[in-house]
Amino acid sequence: MSQLDKVRQWVSTQEIQVAYISDPKSIEYLTGFASDPVERILGLFVFADQDPFLFAPALEVEAIHDTGWNYPVYGYLDHEKPFAMIAAQIKKRVSNPTKWAIEKSHLTIDHYNAMKSQFPSAQFDQDLTPTIQKLRLIKTPDEIEKLDAAGREADLAFQVGFEAVQAGRTEAEIAAELEYVLKKKGVMQMSFDTLIQAGAHAAEPHGATGMNKIENNELVLFDLGTIHQGYISDSSRTVAVGKPSDKALDIYKVCLDAQLTAQAKAKPGMIAEDLDKIARDIITKAGYGEYFIHRLGHGMGMGEHEFPSIMAGNKMTLEEGMCFSIEPGIYIPGVAGVRIEDCVHITKTGCEPFTHTSKKLTYVG
Amino acid sequence: MSQLDKVRQWVSTQEIQVAYISDPKSIEYLTGFASDPVERILGLFVFADQDPFLFAPALEVEAIHDTGWNYPVYGYLDHEKPFAMIAAQIKKRVSNPTKWAIEKSHLTIDHYNAMKSQFPSAQFDQDLTPTIQKLRLIKTPDEIEKLDAAGREADLAFQVGFEAVQAGRTEAEIAAELEYVLKKKGVMQMSFDTLIQAGAHAAEPHGATGMNKIENNELVLFDLGTIHQGYISDSSRTVAVGKPSDKALDIYKVCLDAQLTAQAKAKPGMIAEDLDKIARDIITKAGYGEYFIHRLGHGMGMGEHEFPSIMAGNKMTLEEGMCFSIEPGIYIPGVAGVRIEDCVHITKTGCEPFTHTSKKLTYVG
Repeated sequence: MSQLDKVRQWVSTQEIQVAYISDPKSIEYLTGFASDPVERILGLFVFADQDPFLFAPALEVEAIHDTGWNYPVYGYLDHEKPFAMIAAQIKKRVSNPTKWAIEKSHLTIDHYNAMKSQFPSAQFDQDLTPTIQKLRLIKTPDEIEKLDAAGREADLAFQVGFEAVQAGRTEAEIAAELEYVLKKKGVMQMSFDTLIQAGAHAAEPHGATGMNKIENNELVLFDLGTIHQGYISDSSRTVAVGKPSDKALDIYKVCLDAQLTAQAKAKPGMIAEDLDKIARDIITKAGYGEYFIHRLGHGMGMGEHEFPSIMAGNKMTLEEGMCFSIEPGIYIPGVAGVRIEDCVHITKTGCEPFTHTSKKLTYVG
Repeated sequence: MSQLDKVRQWVSTQEIQVAYISDPKSIEYLTGFASDPVERILGLFVFADQDPFLFAPALEVEAIHDTGWNYPVYGYLDHEKPFAMIAAQIKKRVSNPTKWAIEKSHLTIDHYNAMKSQFPSAQFDQDLTPTIQKLRLIKTPDEIEKLDAAGREADLAFQVGFEAVQAGRTEAEIAAELEYVLKKKGVMQMSFDTLIQAGAHAAEPHGATGMNKIENNELVLFDLGTIHQGYISDSSRTVAVGKPSDKALDIYKVCLDAQLTAQAKAKPGMIAEDLDKIARDIITKAGYGEYFIHRLGHGMGMGEHEFPSIMAGNKMTLEEGMCFSIEPGIYIPGVAGVRIEDCVHITKTGCEPFTHTSKKLTYVG
């Protein structure tokens, strides 16, 4: 049964008349059609006893056919009224639908109001978000294969990036070289802006790659990933140029211990927040607890922020097929920043990483 | 008066007690702080008689201080409850606010419900979207300067890209080389994935750069842009390799005529849809109307999809300081695709483009 059929089944069980899927990521997951419509309207409409249909900007229609979508797709031109057109299609299938499901984590108030004005007496109480999130939570073998392929691309990126590091070069030059080599090989999309931060700059966990020059005797943090057939990689390594300070080497050692320990212990049946605690306790015991200012990990797959979140407060039980990052970080302002990250999938007995670049401190440059 | 003060003034005039700004782009516009919080919560809260505050993920707080934000900012950790924390801060300022304004074009049903549950008796009827859109619609001289700088970066990108074109090379290689040169110069962010499409591939207006090889005697379409201090460029050129077919050359000629004519006629006082019609009429008269399947242009500034939209149905009057693309396109499936695009700003008497790369058909390779 396809994932789309599972949504139809849920729609039928809940006696929902129309399910309106608005999140482009959900649509990609269920149909294979990837698109960022920005402010234009893209919607997937699912019914219990009728075929689903897609509604999209006219200029996307050909691309939708190309993905092998076998159900109807309706395009609209920029000057047309998309919600009236959607309503007309729905009314052909269900004359007066009152029981709707929507994606509450994605649908905006504006689009909700636009749909509501077409169906003033309808109820939009049902939330599709948990149903779709639950499907996306457990990856199929086919999805794991794509994530593995994306992981190999990230390993290649590290290799190229590490070779490019040299004191005196800017973070930007390294990022440029790394992405150049990948693109020439046809790896067209990074999953996010490649992050390269040298020295104290790495202590800003959400800073950006820039014209900051790599100096001798410091650590350089890489956080990068690619997109392979819609599935991402996301991995971090921190490498050394020359002889970093004792302090910098110490936080590396502690962070590595936390990362390796958590990755060795992740397995089915474990509670998400307990995994966070395993890494956090190691860092706290070493005296750096206050510098580990984010969760241990995030779910991933088609995006970098899926479920499960590996953090305090999340009581979710890890299951085979769940995919997430294990990425402890220690950021001491003005001194250095270290983050070491693999994304993994839970197996029958433990977990397997998608990236295999060595985590032992590597000296480069 | 700052743009943020203008929002406060509107809040005061409308007798709104709390304005909740949730769109990261609006927050960047009003505060200078740029961030994509993904699923985390980022909010700007504006009051009539109190200082505004920012609420953000803890790991963004330092970056917010660095932008020179002088009002309070409150960070939250991943395991904390952001909406309860926001509510506590609001209640310190307004004991029981009932009259709220929200950004209806951005706020999701989930986040709306989360806030509503903190303030069950509040009304969230007022929409901030039009007020902020109106501010962003007319660019200040400082914004025009940044858009000019981004335009110069796009011109550089074309120059590098055109030099890289050669029959036998892939679209991907050209994109890689172009972005490499830009990144090495510190131009770190493209405003969207660089689009390079050769031959019939260019007839898919939302296709992607790939391993498709450039062949002799065809057209190659470039659509690209950069981000300069938060402001984007966005420009398209179509160039020739060898001797394209008569059909391809004809659609180039028609598209260029449409683009040049529209750009020559854009000026204050004109109605947006009339400008679309000027270009569309030329293409339709030449027999290619059915192949021009998108609007003539979109507003731009910090993003590529702002107002005004240059399309049928938009009766907005163009004013000095408005910025938008003029980008007619003709896409004949299986044959060729042409798009020629400058983004411009309306001046006192006409318009000025941000990009200056020649639009005469350029032969490369």
